[in-house]
Amino acid sequence: MDLKEMVGKEACKHIKSGMTVGLGTGSTAYHMVAEVGRMIKEENLTITGVTTSTQTLIQARELGIPLASIDEVDHIDITIDGADEVDPNFLGIKGGGAALLYEKIVATYSDKVIWIVDESKMVPQLGKFPLPVEVIPFGSQQIFNILEKRGYRPTFRKTNDGEFLHTDSGNYIIDLHLEAITDPHALAEELIHMTGVVEHGLFLDMTNFVIVGEKEGPKTLINPALEK
Amino acid sequence: MDLKEMVGKEACKHIKSGMTVGLGTGSTAYHMVAEVGRMIKEENLTITGVTTSTQTLIQARELGIPLASIDEVDHIDITIDGADEVDPNFLGIKGGGAALLYEKIVATYSDKVIWIVDESKMVPQLGKFPLPVEVIPFGSQQIFNILEKRGYRPTFRKTNDGEFLHTDSGNYIIDLHLEAITDPHALAEELIHMTGVVEHGLFLDMTNFVIVGEKEGPKTLINPALEK
Repeated sequence: MDLKEMVGKEACKHIKSGMTVGLGTGSTAYHMVAEVGRMIKEENLTITGVTTSTQTLIQARELGIPLASIDEVDHIDITIDGADEVDPNFLGIKGGGAALLYEKIVATYSDKVIWIVDESKMVPQLGKFPLPVEVIPFGSQQIFNILEKRGYRPTFRKTNDGEFLHTDSGNYIIDLHLEAITDPHALAEELIHMTGVVEHGLFLDMTNFVIVGEKEGPKTLINPALEK
Repeated sequence: MDLKEMVGKEACKHIKSGMTVGLGTGSTAYHMVAEVGRMIKEENLTITGVTTSTQTLIQARELGIPLASIDEVDHIDITIDGADEVDPNFLGIKGGGAALLYEKIVATYSDKVIWIVDESKMVPQLGKFPLPVEVIPFGSQQIFNILEKRGYRPTFRKTNDGEFLHTDSGNYIIDLHLEAITDPHALAEELIHMTGVVEHGLFLDMTNFVIVGEKEGPKTLINPALEK
């Protein structure tokens, strides 16, 4: 079993029948969604899924997972999602798959958030992975220029055809090639105050567990700051 | 001459040939855009306009105003726009016309911002006018529920057909019926930190002049905090 499949299955042990489950996006979340589909079919669990992207919506529908939109549910019990980088304080970068906005919205309304990652995603400091910033297309070049002047080395994310990538909300992604983020909270504040920035890929202080895929097996890290 | 036309024309006295001018949206801005068109035609001024909405774009095109997008210009010399409420500290509410996001983006990149209002818009305290909050449709009901719990009396803005109004960016507007906003800066901070909120109608500390239409004539108020 590969590491992504291993952590996807491990995370699903936290799901109980009757739960509303936020379904993340990406290659690791893919295995988790597949396992949720299997549990419904083979173990007769009653689960309602809330998807975080068109991509996951398609997969979940094919698996026959009962779905509700984020705006139809009164809460989400648990959200399971991947992450692109996680530091020792449970701070992370997400958005490599361009679904950061919906992922953050779903995580915001979840009682528990679990990230599933292979061990390569665990880093001492955030920033090697480019930090995505979702921006309104109108004015995006102005934001880009400011970010460039600040030394954040921005690039617009493009499709394989060289066109601007549009998110599920029709926005653009600017990736910041920072290499090292010394103060993620301060950077998050700075970005969210820029007019035209919709959201950014810093996911701070919202993740209860990180399940890390290691060769010896899955290791669950518990965020002490969120455990009451 | 009605008050809106009077202040629209008065504001245009700040425009000089060669300037890039942000063109606001709404019934008062309409007269200003018309005057810009006249100045180009009759006075041979060279002006580049940057529009803040589809509505203003259509008007400006019909008038033959040369236009550039916000992302093509390196700066904007002056932006002239209406406002729905203005308090004695030059803080305002905008967004009655649902163009607040583009209006705020254009204002952000402008060297000077002028608001043109009739005297009914000048208020001792903000909040009688409903405060618009532009939100991503995905998750908007969750935001609505939180705003309701906080006692902010939210309503989704609808079209005449009863459908959700979509902004030029495809988002929804939630209007907050607050009656009185005691601390606009604190409220702005609270709103901008809600995941899924794109922008809000509080325009704070960005307006250099307010030109008020009074029966006796236009009165120009100068924001001392922004005059160096």
